[in-house]
Amino acid sequence: MQVEILATGDELLTGQVVDTNSPWLMDRLWDLGLMVRRKTLVADDRDDLRASILETTARADLVVMSGGMGPTEDDLTSECVAAVLGVPLERHEPSIEVLRERFRKFGRALTPNNEKQAWFPRGAEVIPNRWGSAPGFTVPVGRGRVVCLPGVPVEYRGLCEEWVLPHVGARLGEVPAAGLVKLFAVPESHADHAMRPVMDDPANAGVRFGYRAHWPETHVKWTVPGPGAAARAARIRERVLGIFGEQVFGEGKDELPELVVARLAARGERVALGESCTGGMVAELLTAVPGASAVLDLGVVAYANAAKERVLGVPAELLAAHGAVSEPVARALAEGARRTGGAAWGVGITGIAGPSGGTPEKPVGTVHLAVAGPSGTEAVARAYRGDRDRVRRQAAYEALNLLRLALR
Amino acid sequence: MQVEILATGDELLTGQVVDTNSPWLMDRLWDLGLMVRRKTLVADDRDDLRASILETTARADLVVMSGGMGPTEDDLTSECVAAVLGVPLERHEPSIEVLRERFRKFGRALTPNNEKQAWFPRGAEVIPNRWGSAPGFTVPVGRGRVVCLPGVPVEYRGLCEEWVLPHVGARLGEVPAAGLVKLFAVPESHADHAMRPVMDDPANAGVRFGYRAHWPETHVKWTVPGPGAAARAARIRERVLGIFGEQVFGEGKDELPELVVARLAARGERVALGESCTGGMVAELLTAVPGASAVLDLGVVAYANAAKERVLGVPAELLAAHGAVSEPVARALAEGARRTGGAAWGVGITGIAGPSGGTPEKPVGTVHLAVAGPSGTEAVARAYRGDRDRVRRQAAYEALNLLRLALR
Repeated sequence: MQVEILATGDELLTGQVVDTNSPWLMDRLWDLGLMVRRKTLVADDRDDLRASILETTARADLVVMSGGMGPTEDDLTSECVAAVLGVPLERHEPSIEVLRERFRKFGRALTPNNEKQAWFPRGAEVIPNRWGSAPGFTVPVGRGRVVCLPGVPVEYRGLCEEWVLPHVGARLGEVPAAGLVKLFAVPESHADHAMRPVMDDPANAGVRFGYRAHWPETHVKWTVPGPGAAARAARIRERVLGIFGEQVFGEGKDELPELVVARLAARGERVALGESCTGGMVAELLTAVPGASAVLDLGVVAYANAAKERVLGVPAELLAAHGAVSEPVARALAEGARRTGGAAWGVGITGIAGPSGGTPEKPVGTVHLAVAGPSGTEAVARAYRGDRDRVRRQAAYEALNLLRLALR
Repeated sequence: MQVEILATGDELLTGQVVDTNSPWLMDRLWDLGLMVRRKTLVADDRDDLRASILETTARADLVVMSGGMGPTEDDLTSECVAAVLGVPLERHEPSIEVLRERFRKFGRALTPNNEKQAWFPRGAEVIPNRWGSAPGFTVPVGRGRVVCLPGVPVEYRGLCEEWVLPHVGARLGEVPAAGLVKLFAVPESHADHAMRPVMDDPANAGVRFGYRAHWPETHVKWTVPGPGAAARAARIRERVLGIFGEQVFGEGKDELPELVVARLAARGERVALGESCTGGMVAELLTAVPGASAVLDLGVVAYANAAKERVLGVPAELLAAHGAVSEPVARALAEGARRTGGAAWGVGITGIAGPSGGTPEKPVGTVHLAVAGPSGTEAVARAYRGDRDRVRRQAAYEALNLLRLALR
C-alpha cells in the first residue's frame, strides 16, 4: 500500500508555521509497518493544489491531505478536489446542523462563510469532527483515494486516530508488534554495536531495528512483522533489557522526570535540590510533572558562593579549599539541600556550563553531581561535551538518572 | 523566481527525524520577499528521487535539495542528478584533498566509501563546505538549476547563507526591508486589530504584514518591497512602537531572558528569585543566558510552605491567613528572596498550575507575582488559561516582563 501526505497552507511555505502533523502521522504509520512514500507541501493556490492532487493520486493508494478546510477564501481543498473529479460541491445537511448547534453553544450565528465548511464534493463520505468545526471527507480519486482533514493539530490527530490509522491498518492486515526501550547516556553507535548480535540473529530476520538519539537519551526501537509477531517482539525485549541492564531507564512513553516523581511518591519520600550550573533545570523538569508538589520540598539555585553558604550551609572553608566546582562542594550541596529541605533525598550539582569560566584543570563541561540519602552520599564527576545548553541538559538529566538509580 | 525545496531521507518519512531545515530556509527566503512554491520529501529511492528531480526542475528556477550527500549506500543524490542529466559522475580532486586533510586531522584514513563524497555530476560547480565533510554542488537541470546540500543542519544552514540566499537575492534584485517587533501578552487578534490603520494606510500599499503567536509573545513583522523600502520600513516601525508602547519588549532577535540579564548587568545589579508554581522555570530561563552568574544570586523553589517559611522567611501567619497563593505571600516571597540573596531585586511567584489544586475562589491558573526593588514592592494578580505547562510558562515570562519594566 502506498501512502502520500499532501499538506496545504501558505503559512507552511513561509516558515511561519512548522508542520508537526506529518511527522506525527509518519511515526504512527511506521508503527504499522508502513513508510510514507512522499510528502508534499503546497501553497493555497488553485493551480498548485489541483496539480498536486492529480500527481499524488496517480501514484498512491491513499493521499492524506490537510489544511484548506476552513471558512475563508484561502480554504480551497474541497473546491479543488471537486474540480479534479469534475463534480459539483454539495451541501451536507447533517454537517450544517452540527455547525449550527456548535455556533449556538458559543452564542454566535452561523454565517454563509461558515456554511462553506459543510460543502463537499459529490460522492464524498463525510467524516465527523468531534474536536472542531470542520468535518473531514474522503473520496476516490485517480487510482486511489484522498482523505481531507483540517490542519489544526488536535483535529488532525483525532481524525487520523479515528479514520486514517484504522483504514490503513485494515488494508495492511496484521499489524506488526513493536517495542521501544530508552537508554541513558549510551551513544547511538554503541547501542547499534551492542545490538549487533540481536540484529544479526536469523530468528530476527525481517525485524526492523531503529535508533534515535535525544541526547542524553538513546531510544532503541524494533518492529516485528508477520505471524507470531508479539511473541517475537517480547523475546527481543528480554534480550535488549539483558544487554543494557541499568542503562535502560524506561520503555514506551516513560520519561525520566515522571519516573523519578512516581518512585518518590510510591515510597512516600521527598527530595530537595541544590543546583548551581543547572540553574533550576532539575527543579523545572520535576515540577513540570503534575503532582510534583507531593515529592519536591525545596529547590535552591545557589549560583553565588554566598548563597551556597548562607542558604545551604556549604562551609566557606570547603569552597576556599576545593573551589565551587568540586566533589566536596557537590556533596555539601546535596547534604545541605537534604538538611534544609528536611527531605529524605538531596541532590547537589556544581559545574562549568560555559561558554566562559573554564580553566585547564576544570574545562567547560566539568560537572560534579551528588545524591545524599538515608544511607549516605554518592558523588560522580563528569566531563560533558557541547555548548552551555547541552552541558546543562546533560547534567540535569544525569542528576535525575542518579536519583532514579538511588531510588531502586 | 520560483524556488522549490526537495529533501531526501527515509528518516524524514518515518517521523524519526523532523525536517527543521526547510522552515528555517523558508523563513529566510520570506525575508527576501519570496515564498517557496512547493516542498517535497522523498525516500532514499532511485526511482522516486529521479522522478522528483525531473518534476521539480520542470517547474522551478531553483530547486534546493538536501540529504543523500553522505558516504553510505543510501546516499543517492549525486548519482540521481547525474542520471537525470545523462552525464557521468566525476572525481573532484580538490575535494578529495580537503577530505584527506580532514581525515588526517582526526587521525583516520580516507576509505573509498568516503571518497564518494567527492564525486559530482559532470558540469557541476562544487560548493566547499566549511562545516563538515560533504561539499555541496549546483548544476543546471531542466528549465532551472538544482543546488544539492548536506542535510546536517549546521552544514545546510551554513551553505544556504553562503550560496542559496546570495544567489536568490541576486536574482530578485532589491531586497525588501523588513521589521519585527515582539509584544508581550497581546493576543494575535488584538495586534491585528490595532495594526489595522497602519495596514490600511495607502502609504503602505504593497507591504506584507504578518503575525506570529508564541504565547505569551506575539510577533509583528512587515516586509516592504521596492524603492525606498528602508525608509518606509523605518516609518512603519515608528508607528508600531507608538501603537504598542510598553507592550513592546524587543525587536529582531531580542529575547526576554537576555534583555533582563543585559539590563541587570548594565546597572551592576543582581536579582534573587522566590518561585513556587513556576518551579524553577524563571531561574532556568535566566541561567540559560551566558553570563547570568553575574546577575543571579539565588533562586529558591519553595514548593512546600515549610520551605517558604524556613528559607525565605515568609511568616507562618501570612500563609495561614491568606493561603500560599495570595498577594501577601507573593510579596513576602519577593522580599524574602531579595533579603536572603542580598540582591537589589527580588521576584516572588505563587499560583496554581494545575491540573489539581484549584478551588472555586482560586481556580487553576490563579497566579500572584511580585517584584521587590530598592523603592518598594509591586504585585500583580493573573488568571491564566491553559494547562499546567502553559500556566507555568505564562507566569515565568510574566515575571521576566515585570522585571524588565521595573528595570527601565
